Amino acid sequence: MNGKCGRQTAVLDTPVYIISHAAVVGAKEGEGPLKDAFDMIAKDDKMEQKSWDLAESAFVKRAAELALEKCGFSNDVIDYVLSGDLQNQCAAAHYGLRYTNIPFLGLYGACSTMTESISLGAILVSAGFAHRTLCLTSSHFCSAEKQYRNPLEYGGQRTPSAQWTVTGAGAVILSDRGSGVRVTHITTGKIVDKGITDVSHMGAAMAPAALDTIAAHFKDTGRTPDYYDLILTGDLGVIGSDILCDMLAESGYDIRDRHNDCGKMIYDINEQDVHAGGSGCGCCASVLAGHILPEMENGRYHRVLVAATGALMNPITVLQGESIPAIAHAVAIEN
Amino acid sequence: MNGKCGRQTAVLDTPVYIISHAAVVGAKEGEGPLKDAFDMIAKDDKMEQKSWDLAESAFVKRAAELALEKCGFSNDVIDYVLSGDLQNQCAAAHYGLRYTNIPFLGLYGACSTMTESISLGAILVSAGFAHRTLCLTSSHFCSAEKQYRNPLEYGGQRTPSAQWTVTGAGAVILSDRGSGVRVTHITTGKIVDKGITDVSHMGAAMAPAALDTIAAHFKDTGRTPDYYDLILTGDLGVIGSDILCDMLAESGYDIRDRHNDCGKMIYDINEQDVHAGGSGCGCCASVLAGHILPEMENGRYHRVLVAATGALMNPITVLQGESIPAIAHAVAIEN
Repeated sequence: MNGKCGRQTAVLDTPVYIISHAAVVGAKEGEGPLKDAFDMIAKDDKMEQKSWDLAESAFVKRAAELALEKCGFSNDVIDYVLSGDLQNQCAAAHYGLRYTNIPFLGLYGACSTMTESISLGAILVSAGFAHRTLCLTSSHFCSAEKQYRNPLEYGGQRTPSAQWTVTGAGAVILSDRGSGVRVTHITTGKIVDKGITDVSHMGAAMAPAALDTIAAHFKDTGRTPDYYDLILTGDLGVIGSDILCDMLAESGYDIRDRHNDCGKMIYDINEQDVHAGGSGCGCCASVLAGHILPEMENGRYHRVLVAATGALMNPITVLQGESIPAIAHAVAIEN
Repeated sequence: MNGKCGRQTAVLDTPVYIISHAAVVGAKEGEGPLKDAFDMIAKDDKMEQKSWDLAESAFVKRAAELALEKCGFSNDVIDYVLSGDLQNQCAAAHYGLRYTNIPFLGLYGACSTMTESISLGAILVSAGFAHRTLCLTSSHFCSAEKQYRNPLEYGGQRTPSAQWTVTGAGAVILSDRGSGVRVTHITTGKIVDKGITDVSHMGAAMAPAALDTIAAHFKDTGRTPDYYDLILTGDLGVIGSDILCDMLAESGYDIRDRHNDCGKMIYDINEQDVHAGGSGCGCCASVLAGHILPEMENGRYHRVLVAATGALMNPITVLQGESIPAIAHAVAIEN
């Protein structure tokens, strides 16, 4: 029976299958180590739009279209679409999905949005309120840079701990019918704020949230790290990943031999000048939809815990001297 | 059995009771027609904080605390909190709720957030994933004004169709145990964009979304307007309400004798210089939690359909010449 185990984990006994997935990325991501994984690499990061903001919406739209095309379903049979993004008031999702004609649930989880979307999308399916849900999110280097940091033309110097916002979108379709890869557990994060105030050090701000959620997952389910082939975080990057692994080891959960981070995987850290790695909602979304799910389908991975992480500040709160609240939402995906 | 009826409506056959509610508002709202309905009227809209942004977080925090106090539950037994707001990256919710230690699901539905929150909170309870959920949202005139329009000190002239952002927060607690007032149906809106570009005319931008969702609710459920004692919209204001009623009448649903709008109810439109009425996430939240739910408990209303409406643009997309996508999420509350 569907229900909760422990404080934070929902158990989906009614199966929720991942029947389709699509990832659309920008040029830089298309030159990285996962270049063969993506369904589409944009020739032009502006996607023939008049602004970076609308370009991001075009990535969202294309990812949704491709995910639908790949499983042969039309918009009419999708019960809910769940999405959100980093643009103020989640505009990328709203403009990218405004003509889908699918009941829309808007989410904001910053870079944890992909797993938040899958969490709620899976709950709707598992509970019998939907046959199929479309779960997706996006980010765009250029729309994020101008909103969070500096105008692109300013050419600001980046600190070594800074991360590079992924240009891309990832979408999955969940269904009550299917076989193989499915969502089994959902561990919803709490807001964790350890007082970090450096917005160029997101990995450090988000690692404690990942620790909190992943440890809760193990505690709630009674599982240990060796249950999973892969424990994947969203965009902690190089520094945040080390912090997380150290903190989890101190808590009695050594995940070092099976941890990876989408922010480390999507770029060649040494060659692509991305400093501490990739970030943005589109980072976890495109790596999960483009790389991890196909690798689960072909048998390389059987059990994956995905914990996307998000930093919940905005530029104003940080200028006002506030610290950075963070969150991580985890989903267990098994085949 | 829980499930869906029609394209957009979820039917909650497993009961979800509204066991507590609290509304905390600012000074202007505390001078309006509903002044006796609110649980707390702030003496100072700044709530002893150093910024308007943090003041809004303080309203969120207080509404959550009061809703918990009123039903005698502690944070530990709340399974999920669902919230979001109009501040960039939903900062009011994140800072207001960061120390609750409750699994958090971040939403963005603009001024439709209250009913989106109740929708998903009720689904979690009805499906057996939660015993209790805390659903809330907020807005603040001063944090909204500086973000969406002009610095307060600028004293910009307002157009006649402009609305006044409510300073306040409203919270409800949903539970699988209780009696009386409960959520029975959830009609999730689609994004509707009819090409309106005037951000001082939100009622016109949002009315077509309210039309779409309310008509879908009637179609999906087979109900007619006379099933309800009250059909309540979130913040269409005076002009948007007229547009909605006219359009619904043209669609065969005359709701004029039982429609009201939180944006019309919260202020004295003639005396309080609010032009077309109230708006903001806190408008529907505080009117529902402070006024409507108590009126259902005391028997004045038996069946209420609440459709909160949201405008999904941001200031940048509008400056870029884009139109305003809108959405409305409806919940049927019955006693």
